[in-house]
Amino acid sequence: MIDRLIAIVGEKNLLRGADAAPYAVDISAMRRAEPLAVVRPADTAEVAAVVKLANELRFPVIPVGGRTGLCGAGVGEAVILSFERMAAIREIRVDAQVAVVEAGAILQDIHDAAEARGLVFPLTFGAKGSARVGGFLGTNAGGSNVLRHGNTRDLVLGLEAVLPDGEIVDLMSGLHKNNSGYDLRHLLIGAEGTLGVITAATLKLRPRPGAYATAMIGMENLSDALPLLNEVQRETGGLVEAFEYMPDSYVADYLKLDPAHRRPFDRPHPVNILIEIGALAPRDCTPDGTGAVPIVADLEELLGRYLEEGRIADAVVARNEAQRRELWARREAAAEVASLRPNRITNDVAVPLDRVETFLTRADAVLREVDPGAGTTVVAHLGDGNVHYTVWPTSEDPACKDEIMERVEDIVLDLGGSFSAEHGIGTAKLSSMARRKDPAALAAMRAIKRALDPLNIMNPGKLLPPE
Amino acid sequence: MIDRLIAIVGEKNLLRGADAAPYAVDISAMRRAEPLAVVRPADTAEVAAVVKLANELRFPVIPVGGRTGLCGAGVGEAVILSFERMAAIREIRVDAQVAVVEAGAILQDIHDAAEARGLVFPLTFGAKGSARVGGFLGTNAGGSNVLRHGNTRDLVLGLEAVLPDGEIVDLMSGLHKNNSGYDLRHLLIGAEGTLGVITAATLKLRPRPGAYATAMIGMENLSDALPLLNEVQRETGGLVEAFEYMPDSYVADYLKLDPAHRRPFDRPHPVNILIEIGALAPRDCTPDGTGAVPIVADLEELLGRYLEEGRIADAVVARNEAQRRELWARREAAAEVASLRPNRITNDVAVPLDRVETFLTRADAVLREVDPGAGTTVVAHLGDGNVHYTVWPTSEDPACKDEIMERVEDIVLDLGGSFSAEHGIGTAKLSSMARRKDPAALAAMRAIKRALDPLNIMNPGKLLPPE
Repeated sequence: MIDRLIAIVGEKNLLRGADAAPYAVDISAMRRAEPLAVVRPADTAEVAAVVKLANELRFPVIPVGGRTGLCGAGVGEAVILSFERMAAIREIRVDAQVAVVEAGAILQDIHDAAEARGLVFPLTFGAKGSARVGGFLGTNAGGSNVLRHGNTRDLVLGLEAVLPDGEIVDLMSGLHKNNSGYDLRHLLIGAEGTLGVITAATLKLRPRPGAYATAMIGMENLSDALPLLNEVQRETGGLVEAFEYMPDSYVADYLKLDPAHRRPFDRPHPVNILIEIGALAPRDCTPDGTGAVPIVADLEELLGRYLEEGRIADAVVARNEAQRRELWARREAAAEVASLRPNRITNDVAVPLDRVETFLTRADAVLREVDPGAGTTVVAHLGDGNVHYTVWPTSEDPACKDEIMERVEDIVLDLGGSFSAEHGIGTAKLSSMARRKDPAALAAMRAIKRALDPLNIMNPGKLLPPE
Repeated sequence: MIDRLIAIVGEKNLLRGADAAPYAVDISAMRRAEPLAVVRPADTAEVAAVVKLANELRFPVIPVGGRTGLCGAGVGEAVILSFERMAAIREIRVDAQVAVVEAGAILQDIHDAAEARGLVFPLTFGAKGSARVGGFLGTNAGGSNVLRHGNTRDLVLGLEAVLPDGEIVDLMSGLHKNNSGYDLRHLLIGAEGTLGVITAATLKLRPRPGAYATAMIGMENLSDALPLLNEVQRETGGLVEAFEYMPDSYVADYLKLDPAHRRPFDRPHPVNILIEIGALAPRDCTPDGTGAVPIVADLEELLGRYLEEGRIADAVVARNEAQRRELWARREAAAEVASLRPNRITNDVAVPLDRVETFLTRADAVLREVDPGAGTTVVAHLGDGNVHYTVWPTSEDPACKDEIMERVEDIVLDLGGSFSAEHGIGTAKLSSMARRKDPAALAAMRAIKRALDPLNIMNPGKLLPPE
């Protein structure tokens, strides 16, 4: 097998032993598995050759990106396909507002290339400096501005992939309308490499906002937040880029990370919301000579009115980029805050927008009942219904942890939500998939997997629980 | 079979003979096929029972909506499932901005229900008074404001369906993030009823624009249009709802339809563009006392500047709703204009945004070569790359017509385009699907169809060409 792989990618692009060790884990460090080998193909033809060989010799294949996934989808005793050598940003077409990229291109590099042409690729999340196209398409990554620009799948016009039988499928159109058969693009996006290997993509770009206005809002009741978001959307013409919720307990934990960290307000508030507005129009972002920009003044005026009306308790608007970064740093420390306690249960759940508060109230009540000493770290993308509800149980007993996860999922499902919002399934959520997914949907997914990958070559054991 | 169907839906909800005759054709009148029977189920359980019976007795089933499809997908010698009795708009949730609707709900009724709550469902096209949810989801309908709001699939958060084996799959979440397995929703949307029957959906709503500014722009060169669109998007903050191209030949034909029709400009221009901007923000839509609204004044100022700079040749802005309707009536008469000649070839194609002009130049050149006497009707959704390129050949010879279609498709594919942008495949484009679709993609689609519908019950003979 090794010789045949070397014949495809060349000796220096096949890694084993110590060279392959970094590929035995992902950023979650949840699980360790030694790769059979790591290969670094130079192009799509080499990827196809590896997959064809896998069919012939029956070895499993896992495509990996920056290994920043949080559910273990990129780890396994398999031949790892790694895309360091297929990292080109082939083309930025300004008038058509598209980027043509290879599977190994890094998100931050795409951001930079787009910005240099006056455009943005709106997808963004913490791991943007490492995450690669194939990875964030394979997991349909979310992030903080989904309310304005959608998830990864909403930003992909076309893709190229190697199917489990080694055939190359070319769906690399830059089209906004294309009704020619089943949408294989959306089937491959979010399939975590179990239905094929994404090798390239055509991504949607947007005009670069001329300015951002960013503020922290203090409120007493979470139930007032969604109507407020909807009103700001109406007032600004739908310009809200982020609307992120942090309870006071999150702010308190954030302060523990570093003595230099500051509270957002003198007096703590139960509800803290980071809001960001991005204006495209030049008329809204011309510096007015005082160092401020009109869009910031607009947001100040709006929040001032809400304060007078008693609809919010407090607000602070970033006056410059340093202040804006401070507001964002508080939100982006979520992973660090959650890591304050080693024993934790991660729940990346989604509920309909108008049921976030109900979810939190019911989840907290269940926790008081099941494990009264447990604590939580909560942050939520309030504009898209995604709640990161991390629990620190008092016990390390797996049965106790599983009960908490099950009870939280009971509430999520009861509210019409999902047990995996943006992180995916991998191996981490296989048991949730088995118990929670609509049985007819699960049966259909298995039928599709068997049809496209009868030999179970592509990332076996991920996404679909054993039957 | 008939008795068993009656046992499921009741005698008065099974139509045969003359009562079933209207279901033998769709609006395209392209093809006629007598249904085996038409059944009108009352709920999802009845739909499932019919599909289970179809598996037992091996009869084909076709779900139909308002029968406004243009590719013959809803016609065939099958048991027709019709959704007149499942037309409820179950719920409009204002804060969450979603509508929960049954498969038979009519698009116009959804528009009205949303508007009554200060929201809009942005999908719109000519047949909105008849088209039903199951139909426009099954065909992934497009329309005139895809550049701002996307196609049907971009406006669907969740759905419920009966799979080909009669099992009900519940994906009715109103979630904006849900990474729990393969996206069956996107697989069923646009599958033209070949992978199951959509029975209900959760649709995305948006805030209702407070005002529209609508104008007709006259230009000399189509190549200047896309940069202009991108600039208007930057100037308005991305508020363009429609950007529709009509060449002068289209305008000339429109005048023939009715002596009351008027030219948009005193002097004809090669390029005529209908632009519409929708403003959400109250500050942009407060009447200023003169009967005009600021957003209209903004557009006038912008177009005035472009005129002075010589970037456009002419412009007329609608001053009131009647003038706006006149501008839109001209564009919406496209089907009537194309019907001026009975012998025609319909090409509903898409190309990347920056290749529309190249497509038209090359298609016209091919036409001059193949059939110098042929004429065309051209309209294009310039903001999404969708060109309706209707040809009137001088001959009714099918071989000649097929050659023209093939040569046009050659150009489309060479430019990275699609031979079916928004109308779909049905039976009308099966030969294009066979010759043009990526072979690996077609093989994957066939494998999925066989896996989910091994008995070929669901709308057989549509979308996928015979092997």
